[in-house]
Amino acid sequence: MYLAMNRFRVKPDREEQWEQIWKQRESYLAEVPGFVQFMLLRGADAGDYISFSQWESPEAFHAWTRSESFRLAHAQGAIGEVLDGPPVLGLYEPVITETPTSREFAQTQPQPGRQGPRH
Amino acid sequence: MYLAMNRFRVKPDREEQWEQIWKQRESYLAEVPGFVQFMLLRGADAGDYISFSQWESPEAFHAWTRSESFRLAHAQGAIGEVLDGPPVLGLYEPVITETPTSREFAQTQPQPGRQGPRH
Repeated sequence: MYLAMNRFRVKPDREEQWEQIWKQRESYLAEVPGFVQFMLLRGADAGDYISFSQWESPEAFHAWTRSESFRLAHAQGAIGEVLDGPPVLGLYEPVITETPTSREFAQTQPQPGRQGPRH
Repeated sequence: MYLAMNRFRVKPDREEQWEQIWKQRESYLAEVPGFVQFMLLRGADAGDYISFSQWESPEAFHAWTRSESFRLAHAQGAIGEVLDGPPVLGLYEPVITETPTSREFAQTQPQPGRQGPRH
């Protein structure tokens, strides 16, 4: 499992417009290999948003960022004008995953000084 | 659905210890009403971690923070010494949820100037 989170700071009074842009946008995600789930998350604090996507593997995520689906999804008009600053991307893998009936640990170890890819 | 994310900055060379603390900790989450899923997320960049929990509703999350399960889970020793600074809590609700076979929109609107609860 692999997670990509893009953090956005939306300008005051532009949040409804921001959410409409996302709702009207075609994501082209359904057919992407390794895609699991996407959520646009609205923060409890005004202006705080995250685009959260879940992938079967890091390879599936990185292949998507180089795909035609990605290019099409990101060619649907500028979101820059409703934002305060550029989005901040974070990439994650689960170390522990717990549900009411299970608890699983990753077998990998953290690599000191590692740096994720920049997109 | 409701999501709580606590962002941590872990000191260099303390990441293995940090992950061990979480793995050895009893979460007491399994029996908490409205608990859906927990993940400890390791960032692609060194030191970047998120504790991610998913709840059926905001009420379920807030009830948990006032519960004995919460008190017990957080009384298992200090994590402060492996951290660079205090964690930063973010609370979120999904505006859009998409899977390979579905796409759902929240019926709620963003409230301008809103501020989430502080814990």
